[in-house]
Amino acid sequence: MDKEDKGMAKEFSRMFLILPEIKELLSQNKKKELKKLFYHYEPIEAVEILKEFNLKDRVSLFSSWDVDFAAGVFEKMDKDDQVELLGAFDETRKGEILDEIAPDERVDFFEQLPEKMVTRFLAIMEKEEAQDVRELMKYDKNTAGGRMTTDFAQIEEGISIEEALKTLRETAKDLEMIYYIYVVDRRDKLLGVVSLKDLIMAEPEKKIDEVIHTKLITIPIDMDQEIVAKRIAKYDFLALPVVDNEQKMKGIITVDDLIDVIREENTEDMYKFGAAGKHTEDYLSTKPFTIAKHRMTWLSILVITGFVSSIMLERFPFTLKKWLPLAFFVPLLMGTGGNAGIQAASVMVRSLATGEVRLRDIWRVIKKEFLIGIMIGVGLGLLTLIRAFTLQISSPLYPLALTVGLTMIATVTIATSLGAALPIIFEKLGLDPAVVSGPLITTVVDITSLLIYFEIARRILGFG
Amino acid sequence: MDKEDKGMAKEFSRMFLILPEIKELLSQNKKKELKKLFYHYEPIEAVEILKEFNLKDRVSLFSSWDVDFAAGVFEKMDKDDQVELLGAFDETRKGEILDEIAPDERVDFFEQLPEKMVTRFLAIMEKEEAQDVRELMKYDKNTAGGRMTTDFAQIEEGISIEEALKTLRETAKDLEMIYYIYVVDRRDKLLGVVSLKDLIMAEPEKKIDEVIHTKLITIPIDMDQEIVAKRIAKYDFLALPVVDNEQKMKGIITVDDLIDVIREENTEDMYKFGAAGKHTEDYLSTKPFTIAKHRMTWLSILVITGFVSSIMLERFPFTLKKWLPLAFFVPLLMGTGGNAGIQAASVMVRSLATGEVRLRDIWRVIKKEFLIGIMIGVGLGLLTLIRAFTLQISSPLYPLALTVGLTMIATVTIATSLGAALPIIFEKLGLDPAVVSGPLITTVVDITSLLIYFEIARRILGFG
Repeated sequence: MDKEDKGMAKEFSRMFLILPEIKELLSQNKKKELKKLFYHYEPIEAVEILKEFNLKDRVSLFSSWDVDFAAGVFEKMDKDDQVELLGAFDETRKGEILDEIAPDERVDFFEQLPEKMVTRFLAIMEKEEAQDVRELMKYDKNTAGGRMTTDFAQIEEGISIEEALKTLRETAKDLEMIYYIYVVDRRDKLLGVVSLKDLIMAEPEKKIDEVIHTKLITIPIDMDQEIVAKRIAKYDFLALPVVDNEQKMKGIITVDDLIDVIREENTEDMYKFGAAGKHTEDYLSTKPFTIAKHRMTWLSILVITGFVSSIMLERFPFTLKKWLPLAFFVPLLMGTGGNAGIQAASVMVRSLATGEVRLRDIWRVIKKEFLIGIMIGVGLGLLTLIRAFTLQISSPLYPLALTVGLTMIATVTIATSLGAALPIIFEKLGLDPAVVSGPLITTVVDITSLLIYFEIARRILGFG
Repeated sequence: MDKEDKGMAKEFSRMFLILPEIKELLSQNKKKELKKLFYHYEPIEAVEILKEFNLKDRVSLFSSWDVDFAAGVFEKMDKDDQVELLGAFDETRKGEILDEIAPDERVDFFEQLPEKMVTRFLAIMEKEEAQDVRELMKYDKNTAGGRMTTDFAQIEEGISIEEALKTLRETAKDLEMIYYIYVVDRRDKLLGVVSLKDLIMAEPEKKIDEVIHTKLITIPIDMDQEIVAKRIAKYDFLALPVVDNEQKMKGIITVDDLIDVIREENTEDMYKFGAAGKHTEDYLSTKPFTIAKHRMTWLSILVITGFVSSIMLERFPFTLKKWLPLAFFVPLLMGTGGNAGIQAASVMVRSLATGEVRLRDIWRVIKKEFLIGIMIGVGLGLLTLIRAFTLQISSPLYPLALTVGLTMIATVTIATSLGAALPIIFEKLGLDPAVVSGPLITTVVDITSLLIYFEIARRILGFG
């Protein structure tokens, strides 16, 4: 991480060295120079530079840029900044930018706007582009339809390579991805794909049909984004075509969309494992109360479940009065059990997410984790036994130490098996295994280990 | 997950319907038909189909395919299967396959072989390819050099678009990525990049220098793969060039390599958060003893730290004898504190990993989490207070309930703040914030909450 900071710092300085120059040029209103200055920067870098300027300067900077660079920058900005900035543009600039940004990014932008603003913005856009927004807004955000872009390269069957290249040259300027060209029939039904590599390698007179790949991996338009991500990651394509029920070509999902999806899904999994509730768009800008509310849900459930442990201890007060040293080890036994459970659960949740472990492996995994649990349990049990012998107590030491040591073995074994089994059982039941969080495991293990503790104590110390 | 299973099942059946046909063709040794059958499948699908066949049949299937399809399948197989299969090929086939597979995949394969096998395999390969393997094996597996492929498209400065396209046509067959063409000078120094899109859009007579992009994002050859992944994800390029200290072009890292890196890094982070020790290549095939050993390290440390809690309780036996009901709430208070800490830590570990939260936000975050902690604490404190009033005890109920309720508020507040602060402090110290695991948090919180509990009890119940 240290190294990374250095790497980041280098990029950082590359950008921020030019801040004084930009300020100077802005104050002199030298638009041409500003435009030229940004030739050396990627849109995402311009976004970071913009953060250092106020709204008025941002508008000036945008007006100095070509519309395609401006659109590229705009689509990478935070949602809040986009709305604020767009509000400050004049009507022409508004329309230009909205027409130019990538369809998938544009829909993300529109989806967070109130209905009234959507209508107002659509009115100033070109008809065709506005129609595209309306079409894409119909799809659920988390499906292929909500993720795809409609700017893909398309040609009709039957034409020659030369004609295909000509069509491509005419349309390529506005497309996000021209390296795969989708071949459709007259009714837009997807027939196959040719890559730009195929096109430039083939004789110009050849027909498209001679180079077309008809073995197609397609994405149904209503497919969940998580499955889409897995499918794209599995096949090493730069993009996959999205089709409707009638195999009509609707859009494409590119590999960089996939990276965003993977990132989101991983964040969600981590939040779930931490039982931290719903992931909000942006941690820093979310109100503490909102975050507290999200986290409360799980915590309340776990606290109420946790009451069971206090009730169990309440029922055994005579035992505890007589064998008070038993109480000293309650946190240690519960804590270690919980930790062993978290270890196994984190491994299993992740293995299920990557597909390394599948449902059919369930018995193999549980058997394996049981063995692992015994091995760890025996090791830690011995450690605890030794600690117990250091007690300064009046009660007989030997049976007490034995009780504590044996409980450690049993607790860790059961916790490990349970930690591994729960995510698989959740998946088997059609639930999300990532819901098996650390806190859920510790709470379940807490109660289990108390039960084991008292049972072993009862048998060895002989009360009951 | 349920939906996903269905999606997967569909792909599954697409592949497995042809198993009987393949078996039939194999038994009749109809190689041509076998080759044709696989036209409809991607290499990764062939890998899954291969799993259903024994070694002898696998060799027959490989010998029915073209060498480029065979190489594509080979590079996607598990490492163990690769070694076994290669051993079964005759020498010619061995050399062919090794020459053909992608350089980055090939190095991964060679890196796991014993030195003796490396030498033997290199001897049957073409000189140039063998040299390439030796070159790539010099770099650390987790750096850009270890991840890059050397099959990139390259042209020299000064030539025309037409000449560039001609060069590309001649070399493209063996390249992994021909959509970015890197322009170098005579000493291989990287000058810029042109996209295939630029080439086909420009007039053929124009010089490369008129369309070249010289604002270049490059990857130093020794950069850590995690930072490489972040950099590629940030800029939406399909590939980034890898250069040495003298800006000489050494290779490219493509976006699909990045996906593997992200996946590995996320797995590592999850293992760390679960304190589950080192991530092994493959869970199912790793011996239980090895896994147990990995997990033991952290658990032993945590158990020994956990002894502190038992020592603390041992020191307070008189208190506990007099106020035994205090003991009933120890697991609940510790457990809830631990859970609240895990929530905050999971959010923070993830936010640091995605870059959503940076080091400079440290005070803002701690202030925020403190507030969140108080809100959650008050809610759960009230809940616990109510529960305490249901106790059936002879001691005065009111001060005891107050003690428990107040401890809950304090514990949750401190646990939440601590859970958020620890990952940031780790990052600040140049350590990996992902090491702040659930188990580490719960262990720290366990001890803290016991201290708070006894202190509040002492003040309210008036002993000490």
